[in-house]
Amino acid sequence: MSDSRPIGVFDSGVGGLTVLLELRRQLPAEDVLYLADLAHFPDVPRPQQQVRELTLGIIDLLAGMDTKLVVIACNTASAAGLHAARERFEIPIVGVIAPGAQAAATATRNGRVAVISTAGTLASQEYLHAIKEANPGVSVLGKAAPELVDIVEDGDADTARADAALSDVLADVFAWGADTLVLGCTHYPLLRPALQRVIGRRRVRVVDSAETTAARVRRILDVNRLTGGAGAGAVLEVLVSGDPDRFAMTADRLFEEPLPAPTAISIGLPPVSLAAAT
Amino acid sequence: MSDSRPIGVFDSGVGGLTVLLELRRQLPAEDVLYLADLAHFPDVPRPQQQVRELTLGIIDLLAGMDTKLVVIACNTASAAGLHAARERFEIPIVGVIAPGAQAAATATRNGRVAVISTAGTLASQEYLHAIKEANPGVSVLGKAAPELVDIVEDGDADTARADAALSDVLADVFAWGADTLVLGCTHYPLLRPALQRVIGRRRVRVVDSAETTAARVRRILDVNRLTGGAGAGAVLEVLVSGDPDRFAMTADRLFEEPLPAPTAISIGLPPVSLAAAT
Repeated sequence: MSDSRPIGVFDSGVGGLTVLLELRRQLPAEDVLYLADLAHFPDVPRPQQQVRELTLGIIDLLAGMDTKLVVIACNTASAAGLHAARERFEIPIVGVIAPGAQAAATATRNGRVAVISTAGTLASQEYLHAIKEANPGVSVLGKAAPELVDIVEDGDADTARADAALSDVLADVFAWGADTLVLGCTHYPLLRPALQRVIGRRRVRVVDSAETTAARVRRILDVNRLTGGAGAGAVLEVLVSGDPDRFAMTADRLFEEPLPAPTAISIGLPPVSLAAAT
Repeated sequence: MSDSRPIGVFDSGVGGLTVLLELRRQLPAEDVLYLADLAHFPDVPRPQQQVRELTLGIIDLLAGMDTKLVVIACNTASAAGLHAARERFEIPIVGVIAPGAQAAATATRNGRVAVISTAGTLASQEYLHAIKEANPGVSVLGKAAPELVDIVEDGDADTARADAALSDVLADVFAWGADTLVLGCTHYPLLRPALQRVIGRRRVRVVDSAETTAARVRRILDVNRLTGGAGAGAVLEVLVSGDPDRFAMTADRLFEEPLPAPTAISIGLPPVSLAAAT
């Protein structure tokens, strides 16, 4: 038995492409509907409640497109909206926090895990809870590093600007003695070369959610008999609200094969004024 | 290397004894400090915030008694206080919800899990989230059944009164088609004989948290190199605030060997007036 419906994946910006890349690699036979909501999620801090409403609106849209499972490929949206989404929708929904948290809890040898993320994700404490759920004996240090998102979005991920920002953010992490660092934002895997320079010879293992989330999706499809499309050439459809050039720039950097041209969409959510974001 | 400090276990009432029984069975070499706070947790619905404060106060007390790990052996207190406790204390803290939830997500064949619990536990939605975290493809039906606690506390667990109450509570569960039932309150395992009568020949698997929580504690001690006391006769110390007779009645029913005489304690928390509970 197989289920040929697509997997829905969405992100606020370009970071979710790191998750998409892993999903394509690990589940090459699955159709994917990828939605990048660049219009509603400019990377400014928003109140949790607003992120939650936007997340629910997009999942509603994807569920209406006959997806069999939805991945919230964004840490901030997972932190703010995963619980509410699971209370509201029957379709299986996967966030990116628990998979990375479990990988980190397993990876650490000295029981000290640091997490860098946006301010919204840090405030939610979802990483702390997910890591302690995996192993309550692990200590967690959270650090907000929102400037790293701008650096990636500006195309400066592999520059001296990135090195300087990472040195600054990671000083506390090194001083605290973490042996495991979680990249708690889907943008951050794009900083891997700069991260390696800043970490240098320190014994710090870097964990991101992209690979572990894709592995999680594979297992969930399997357990629930939702695996599909075996044999057929899998289709990737990309929907983008807002500026498609910003999307294309990161997509070109990450993917060897060009992605299909994105379809511009207008999402039926009220645009949120920046003045309201506090 | 071994760690001879005791495990701390606490409950609001007598239900936690079902968890204690399993801990003694699975970890016979571990010292245990068991605290039953009968004075502060009479089984009336309390606001979440109040349960959280009481939970934090008791963990503070147990941490001060040099325990190496604390088990919140009560679903209502786990639902209200586990997250806050993990944010506040460095000592590993284990709740009873996730272990039972994971066992249920693994046990179900048709993807329909029902959970009976107190009203506070249901309102928290912690079971729904823990089950969907284990497998987001599982559907969850929650039912509050607070009257079952009174039945157990009154010593009527194996009577026609219990059968009638369970028939009433489980009618929806049977109609919905659940193949797995989680006993989401540590009192409920005492109702097993009545449950078996009411379930009859229906194919419904019953999962409780006592066994899975003890297994979880064993694994956490192991992973974090906190296992202790190998060889020595393990000591169980029992502290009870409030009415020791109520405690002794259930203890006698559950344990073949008599438990040590409880030490009466007065816990330094302000008694909460019933009038304030809404």
